[in-house]
Amino acid sequence: MSFSLPVMRPLLPTRRALAPYLRRIDHNRWYSNMGPLAQELALRLGHHHGAPALPLANATVGLTAALLAHDLPPGGRCLMPSWSFAATAQAARMAGLTPFFCDVAPEHGQLTPQLAEQSLATAAGPVVAVMPVCPFGHPVDWLGWQDFRRRHSVAVIIDAAAAFDTVQASEIPAVVSLHATKALGAGEGGYALCRDEELLRRMVRVINFGMDESRQSVTLGGNGKLSEYHAAVALAGLDHWPQRRRRLATLLGRLRRAVGDFAHWPAGLGDAYVTSTACVGFADSWAMEQALRDHGIETRRWWSGPLHRHPAFADGQQLPITEHLAATTLGLPCWIGMGRTEITALAQALAHVNHDRPATR
Amino acid sequence: MSFSLPVMRPLLPTRRALAPYLRRIDHNRWYSNMGPLAQELALRLGHHHGAPALPLANATVGLTAALLAHDLPPGGRCLMPSWSFAATAQAARMAGLTPFFCDVAPEHGQLTPQLAEQSLATAAGPVVAVMPVCPFGHPVDWLGWQDFRRRHSVAVIIDAAAAFDTVQASEIPAVVSLHATKALGAGEGGYALCRDEELLRRMVRVINFGMDESRQSVTLGGNGKLSEYHAAVALAGLDHWPQRRRRLATLLGRLRRAVGDFAHWPAGLGDAYVTSTACVGFADSWAMEQALRDHGIETRRWWSGPLHRHPAFADGQQLPITEHLAATTLGLPCWIGMGRTEITALAQALAHVNHDRPATR
Repeated sequence: MSFSLPVMRPLLPTRRALAPYLRRIDHNRWYSNMGPLAQELALRLGHHHGAPALPLANATVGLTAALLAHDLPPGGRCLMPSWSFAATAQAARMAGLTPFFCDVAPEHGQLTPQLAEQSLATAAGPVVAVMPVCPFGHPVDWLGWQDFRRRHSVAVIIDAAAAFDTVQASEIPAVVSLHATKALGAGEGGYALCRDEELLRRMVRVINFGMDESRQSVTLGGNGKLSEYHAAVALAGLDHWPQRRRRLATLLGRLRRAVGDFAHWPAGLGDAYVTSTACVGFADSWAMEQALRDHGIETRRWWSGPLHRHPAFADGQQLPITEHLAATTLGLPCWIGMGRTEITALAQALAHVNHDRPATR
Repeated sequence: MSFSLPVMRPLLPTRRALAPYLRRIDHNRWYSNMGPLAQELALRLGHHHGAPALPLANATVGLTAALLAHDLPPGGRCLMPSWSFAATAQAARMAGLTPFFCDVAPEHGQLTPQLAEQSLATAAGPVVAVMPVCPFGHPVDWLGWQDFRRRHSVAVIIDAAAAFDTVQASEIPAVVSLHATKALGAGEGGYALCRDEELLRRMVRVINFGMDESRQSVTLGGNGKLSEYHAAVALAGLDHWPQRRRRLATLLGRLRRAVGDFAHWPAGLGDAYVTSTACVGFADSWAMEQALRDHGIETRRWWSGPLHRHPAFADGQQLPITEHLAATTLGLPCWIGMGRTEITALAQALAHVNHDRPATR
């Protein structure tokens, strides 16, 4: 069906904003393979975050590359929250590891260092890696994870796919997505951020067919390079990031007021940090989804249920907090260009549906 | 060092040629995930080749996806020629298979159905897949491989990375690269061509996180989608393909005359088919490489030696024809925009170096 109010309408830099970068591409005749624009993007992302950055074809490839760069034993377990997008688990499987799902903390839907320690202590088999996730861009305990890494002999890679605005560099790699639907987008793309430059160098090799300077493959790898075109889009996006961030903050603030007490709004979203989705908690999200659909308003369960229930990963576990979050979380319409008309329509629909329903959590 | 005559200067459509497509992207606000331009590219490639085509993030991802779409037993052997680019072997490894290298036919440097049958008969363990390669774009026996597939219960995927101009559709998938350095380029990109539409549908799932219509992962997969930006570059390239093909044919014809009897020129290259490299055979390629370098002329061993000698894949085999080809094949400068001056310089350097050397093969 078609909706009068869609859940997502991505907006990337226009042809006009891309023009100076495209002119450079025409001049350089260099279109991929860490060309001048990808190099500039690495520098500018590094400057933005205050740590070395490595552009990547996409974040999923980046998570796989970060795992492969650790040279972990094939088949080893990779601990991760079940409350995430499928890419987290698929990235581990593509790196030859077995996803090992655990539950999350109720207050922010995250795997924490404390929960990971409990899982390590009770796991039936050896765990070789841990992948914490920033749920819908919410920051994780960056330095807590760095400490965790120092205390335990496991690889730690942070899936910061939606966390462009909150990611903080540390000795462990964080992988950010530049997909079209993210706060900063390149179409397809991503990058790794890490103070461990030796690890980034190993990742460079992994994303270039595992080749060393002799152009011979010395390790497992593939093609995970960001093209100059996608670098151009990301660079043009960075040029206007302060304005875009303000627009996202304004939009999220309006959405928060429209949602009011009808739903649980993630702490800090729209003031402490921005992201490109508004995923909120409803006591009865299934009824809400249907009711909003009846008003022509699209919603989305971005992650399509807990990962440990996806047929590809089903492991028979009970993870009650993850299951509660999956049953109550709904993505509301959220996109740059949504005006007062759309937000008022959403607020009225929520009020209409909720006149006799309680808020959740 | 810097060369007065570089071996490769890619040339993709200019900003002006991209403009109509970029305008459509601005209008659509759809930047990846099989958007309108990627759909149009699928249709136009399908029309060009007379069979269904599936756009991909790159050819390596495409080879992996084609293997994964066959749901082969992990660790199974994938038979492939050692005379190929590292991506062939890495794609198999990323699909959980073990590369099993074999030698090639001397006349065109290919694994043939006959050679594959011999290898299947003598292999120590079970072979689950075969990946023939089009060396530097040279056509393989497309229908012979289809027959082979019908006779043997193994998957067959053709690595046609450089073979945009010669690829022929059959029931088995062929994967073509749209990398910047190829005859038709998108920056990064590729596509699969296959008359088996059910197999292409399974590949669609693999390149979209293994998700089915419910957006739940049902199988192993990752992000192998072609963005709208890369689709735009490929579409603009297709618009001018007839002219580009003529330019490549003219260039290759001139290079062939410049090379004369000094080297072995691949049969058909420049008349029966075009590609973007001129990889030719020299009796003493190491001396030739050095001598041309002394003239400021860059050459390249595109594949950096036989795959079975790369540290990541070394298997201790002796594959004499592959080793001979690797020791004698050198990529000469070949790029659109090379004029008579550059070609004369190359011809004179070759004549100077060769005045007392015999031709090879």
